[in-house]
Amino acid sequence: MPNVLPPILTAEDAQRYYEEIRQHNHYDFTPLMTIKINSSTTPEIIRAAKQSEIIIAGKLYPEGVTTNSEDGVSDFYDLWSVFEAMEEVDMVLCLHGEVPKPEIFCLDRETEFLKILSGIRNKFPKLRIVLEHISTAAAAQWVLENGGPNTAATVTVHHLLLTLNDVVGGMLQPHHFCKPIAKRPQDRQRLIDAVTTPGQTQFFAGSDTAPHAIETKECAAGCAGVFTAPVLWPLYTEVFERADALDQLETFTSVNGANFYGLPLNKGTMTLVKEPWQVEPTYGGVVPLRAGQVIEWRIKEIN
Amino acid sequence: MPNVLPPILTAEDAQRYYEEIRQHNHYDFTPLMTIKINSSTTPEIIRAAKQSEIIIAGKLYPEGVTTNSEDGVSDFYDLWSVFEAMEEVDMVLCLHGEVPKPEIFCLDRETEFLKILSGIRNKFPKLRIVLEHISTAAAAQWVLENGGPNTAATVTVHHLLLTLNDVVGGMLQPHHFCKPIAKRPQDRQRLIDAVTTPGQTQFFAGSDTAPHAIETKECAAGCAGVFTAPVLWPLYTEVFERADALDQLETFTSVNGANFYGLPLNKGTMTLVKEPWQVEPTYGGVVPLRAGQVIEWRIKEIN
Repeated sequence: MPNVLPPILTAEDAQRYYEEIRQHNHYDFTPLMTIKINSSTTPEIIRAAKQSEIIIAGKLYPEGVTTNSEDGVSDFYDLWSVFEAMEEVDMVLCLHGEVPKPEIFCLDRETEFLKILSGIRNKFPKLRIVLEHISTAAAAQWVLENGGPNTAATVTVHHLLLTLNDVVGGMLQPHHFCKPIAKRPQDRQRLIDAVTTPGQTQFFAGSDTAPHAIETKECAAGCAGVFTAPVLWPLYTEVFERADALDQLETFTSVNGANFYGLPLNKGTMTLVKEPWQVEPTYGGVVPLRAGQVIEWRIKEIN
Repeated sequence: MPNVLPPILTAEDAQRYYEEIRQHNHYDFTPLMTIKINSSTTPEIIRAAKQSEIIIAGKLYPEGVTTNSEDGVSDFYDLWSVFEAMEEVDMVLCLHGEVPKPEIFCLDRETEFLKILSGIRNKFPKLRIVLEHISTAAAAQWVLENGGPNTAATVTVHHLLLTLNDVVGGMLQPHHFCKPIAKRPQDRQRLIDAVTTPGQTQFFAGSDTAPHAIETKECAAGCAGVFTAPVLWPLYTEVFERADALDQLETFTSVNGANFYGLPLNKGTMTLVKEPWQVEPTYGGVVPLRAGQVIEWRIKEIN
């Protein structure tokens, strides 16, 4: 993801970040790089990024909606020439889909964004769009209706598990606080239905895992994000098992995303077993989802 | 308020708590005592409480909705004989108006409670009811429609100032987290309209100020409540000034409540002036609303 400091804005930035990741890469994976689309982005930057074989997408963060998005976009129409270039060179546009206006009610910001998205979709029908970490029934419906092969959405495991009740319904739970904020039970159910529908091709896993240090979450102005990395695949498995859809899990986690990006499927496998284990309270000073709790599925091996 | 540990359940408890307050009373005020209504409450307890001249009301907390409400009420129909006794002896019933079911969406819990409240209202038409710290347009409307002289509501200053956006719309703000949770901008506007309507008699000030220590707010499971005591009257004044209704302020803060409870108006006065001052970041380890910020109105003198 390109929302680091300093941001990854160009092919050169991405190359540098790629090499940095490779130096710390203990698992021999190939990072798939993105650049951040903001008001400094030009069609030339897009074309140069497309030439780089390591970059698969440009990501757009509306101004102020999430971590390090102060330099985000507030007027999407300023980016028409950038979207045109992305459509032309076939670079995927990934979007954090919330309208960046503080006066809009927080639970309505994703739904409001769909109007803007419809404008982009209609103007650039061949542009490949991924609406990231969707949180509402409306967004799931939009993807299905306006979708076709050029539109997809990612769904995090925390948006399949949490509702706003898990953030503010009992005691305040900062480790469940993320953007977009978790919504109503009906929204969560619609997301579960979307990802578990047999044969669906437009929804795939995207963790949006956010390793914020505990002191930046448990404080007077807490960071948005849920840390799911240590529990991600076990909890996706839990969701699919509860929906009686374990047979759809691989498609969602390992096939649809690769197909959308035109990447080969991974040859490796991950095997999960139903074997309870207790999640650590923290990992390197970061509190994970289900901290200290027992969860049912465990990663047995990765080959 | 009776939701202390141990709870104030009887006239004897209230008497003991009254004397404790008087011992620490540096301002020479007369505490108005309440008892907590729960499943242990009997008609006899109500009649004994009514005999005590210091007790003005019984307060009912649905189970689990707020601080120290684990012993609250989950089935209101169990209390029919208690409500009957309260109606008979004319003891005011104060309610935290949220349905105590975790499966109900947090923003809907107050509106759902209005159905229960309509049942109580219809069954006991002479029972005097105060719906405490209302947070929704629906509750304000309910009070106006079902009200008459036997029904009123209190409105906190934080529910006149905050919306859910101020809790989860930007960074997470635990010091804005309270129960009922602040709702939509439209709800806040309806509350402002209700309290500032010329000649209204059914809405009056109730602070619900909650002095939770900073470490119980900025943590993994934060307490609900906003600490407004140091800024209460200046901020109510700010709300009324912005609504161009300063002439309605005294009615709301100092007349309607006393009239509803049948108490004499206070003879003393409080004078506020428009003179900016900076709120302390903390008061005795508790973070107030508008901590560290400049506010416009100041208490000049209390006579």
